[in-house]
Amino acid sequence: MSEQVGSRLDPWVDSYAQRAQGLTASAIRALFAVASRPEVVSLAGGMPYVQALDTEIFADIAARVIREQGTTALQYGSGQGDVVLREQILDIAAEVGVKSHADDVIITVGSQMGLDLVTKVFCDPGDTVLVESPSYVGALGVFRSFQCNVVHVEMDDQGLNPDALKHALATHRNVKMIYTIPSFHNPAGLTQSQQRRDEILAIAQENGVLVLEDDPYSLLGFEGEIPQAIRARDDHGVIYLGSFSKIIASGLRVGYVIAPHGAREKIVLAAESATLCPSNFSQLTISRYLAEQPWREQIKTFREIYQDRRDSLLESMQALMPAGTTWTIPSGGFYSWVTLPAGLDATNMLPRAISELVAYVPGTGFYADGQGAQSLRLSYCYPDPERIREGVRRLASVIEKEIDLIATFGVSSPNPTAPTTFNPFTNLG
Amino acid sequence: MSEQVGSRLDPWVDSYAQRAQGLTASAIRALFAVASRPEVVSLAGGMPYVQALDTEIFADIAARVIREQGTTALQYGSGQGDVVLREQILDIAAEVGVKSHADDVIITVGSQMGLDLVTKVFCDPGDTVLVESPSYVGALGVFRSFQCNVVHVEMDDQGLNPDALKHALATHRNVKMIYTIPSFHNPAGLTQSQQRRDEILAIAQENGVLVLEDDPYSLLGFEGEIPQAIRARDDHGVIYLGSFSKIIASGLRVGYVIAPHGAREKIVLAAESATLCPSNFSQLTISRYLAEQPWREQIKTFREIYQDRRDSLLESMQALMPAGTTWTIPSGGFYSWVTLPAGLDATNMLPRAISELVAYVPGTGFYADGQGAQSLRLSYCYPDPERIREGVRRLASVIEKEIDLIATFGVSSPNPTAPTTFNPFTNLG
Repeated sequence: MSEQVGSRLDPWVDSYAQRAQGLTASAIRALFAVASRPEVVSLAGGMPYVQALDTEIFADIAARVIREQGTTALQYGSGQGDVVLREQILDIAAEVGVKSHADDVIITVGSQMGLDLVTKVFCDPGDTVLVESPSYVGALGVFRSFQCNVVHVEMDDQGLNPDALKHALATHRNVKMIYTIPSFHNPAGLTQSQQRRDEILAIAQENGVLVLEDDPYSLLGFEGEIPQAIRARDDHGVIYLGSFSKIIASGLRVGYVIAPHGAREKIVLAAESATLCPSNFSQLTISRYLAEQPWREQIKTFREIYQDRRDSLLESMQALMPAGTTWTIPSGGFYSWVTLPAGLDATNMLPRAISELVAYVPGTGFYADGQGAQSLRLSYCYPDPERIREGVRRLASVIEKEIDLIATFGVSSPNPTAPTTFNPFTNLG
Repeated sequence: MSEQVGSRLDPWVDSYAQRAQGLTASAIRALFAVASRPEVVSLAGGMPYVQALDTEIFADIAARVIREQGTTALQYGSGQGDVVLREQILDIAAEVGVKSHADDVIITVGSQMGLDLVTKVFCDPGDTVLVESPSYVGALGVFRSFQCNVVHVEMDDQGLNPDALKHALATHRNVKMIYTIPSFHNPAGLTQSQQRRDEILAIAQENGVLVLEDDPYSLLGFEGEIPQAIRARDDHGVIYLGSFSKIIASGLRVGYVIAPHGAREKIVLAAESATLCPSNFSQLTISRYLAEQPWREQIKTFREIYQDRRDSLLESMQALMPAGTTWTIPSGGFYSWVTLPAGLDATNMLPRAISELVAYVPGTGFYADGQGAQSLRLSYCYPDPERIREGVRRLASVIEKEIDLIATFGVSSPNPTAPTTFNPFTNLG
């Protein structure tokens, strides 16, 4: 490339699409590279504890998939995904009350791809997406990459607040979607009651706005009934995103969209444009696992492991966190949302936490608008209970020192560049 | 969803993004569903002949990947892809003269995802992409889905014509990329000489325009040296797309982008937004295959199979095609581009061909602007030589009848709705 064009560092600096302005690396990315050292207790990543899987079972299944269905497993497949697996997905969706048809299921490369496709199909630049406050960082990245106007809607202890939702719908134009994680919310750790779900759906219906329901955690609840999806009450008004990443194995990269029938074709066409087709190798491995193995038992094992870790997190926070620190009490899933005492800034505090060998994700990552400085997300899914206690001990000590610092020198310095994009599931064991 | 909004068939009909207008199903899709019946000789699909792979080897590798690296294989991984596989990709890229660094390699879900990411990062709506005439249907779909202005540039017997390229650059504004498949072109079956590649690169450099080089077939040549990539001469001005789909196995869905260093980060961020990360399961399987197996021997086996089939196609066309039918002579890859006698329309003729039990892809699919009605693509990659001969026999007979019809009743009826989007690799055995 001749050097007349662009800068020496990047000759294409003037050539990027406008939407690429939303694709900027986070200042905290570099910190996380440090945080992946084994001596750091990471309460940051959202990696499922795949060590609980019996690898011998998967090794055997993968081998038989290739021996017995090799010319399918190693070949291109359908853009919409394997039809047998789409039928099996209906059984899993039935657990959360969703009744659908395999025609309306689209298999994706993780549910992240579902987010990307739905946004691509529905959202023009400037269109508004209503999201929870806070919301999933990976979704915010997608919305930003398609130049959406992201508006955060307040939550209460049941998640998305109906009055705040009504207000947001009344005060914003071109609202294309309400993006919600009703069960065991990432990062807030909250769950909508059935009544709350019905209220939210009614509001969406009254306003003719699509609900995009992201539901990777609903089978990972610790108590009571499995929460029923919003999609269970409305096939036409809700796009449902599901995933095998948390209930089987994230490394296979298999998720799914259950779409209103009319939107289904456009999403399939967008999927073909994005990747031609999902991997038959991964799909057939999952399909055979579902057909042959007691997958509900495996999910039960995961639930028990995560509940044990959740208990460890909550007990140690209760015992160790300085006064003024508050947190949500998750009844399932992977996360608790912690709010620091007034004056503390979780982004500023992160380098000190990492030097004390504990990592978390600062709250600003879960907002599109710079909110969240006083909060952070803790994940209890990956480290064992003893490590979690040790991590909380370290974090509590960092917070205490931070409180002392502020008492001595006044408020914490202003938030540096807010984190923008990062992979929430990278190797942050 | 309440029925006040939208139509009864699709309540969201007014809600789609503008770009979704480019996502429309092809009129020929329904025909291809019929064409996948086993009695039809399909010269339409681009499925590699994976039957030539030793499934026992892949079964064993997949099982050991999970046994020995299970907690990696089943877990989320890096958004950019496995670093060991990225190093191995450098060896494959070296075969076509590309020298790079693993930092600049991004692993994608097939090279289709590379096309999608590069277009997303570089192209605003209305930006121009110059493409060959004809061009790869899957790329045209991506460009259309990002609302690009696609301009076809004439080819000659070496592919992209330099004078035509200069003319296109002189007469179009906002040209963001020159998209080219220099080796064993899909669908044209043509290959640029080294001199031609140098000319094209020089023109791109003079105009400060990025080259997007799509190179899935270059190791599948039948004669002489492996053609050297355009990227081999310019690390900064060329984005290179590679794939394991044709040289190992398409069902694993592993491709790669080798990007200029400056653009690399944005492409990684776009990849994370699209799918979080590629499948570790697939990546580690490919990586171990490359490390343990004589992959160059496997590629040689593929080359010999495809050469045999190419010979069968060319010999039978030579023997059977009616006067006035012409075709390109591919020296590698999967395809020959056939031009019908004057007055014939390949789209109109397709239903008759399928009823005579032979399928092909009509030429209009490879144009964004309605050209190509007189042409069609034949694939020789999948059916065996005897089936290919039978397919050509049937097709020649259909063409002859078509010529007779036209001689009797005048020109063929005008082209119906031009095909727009379809998956070029679906099950069209």
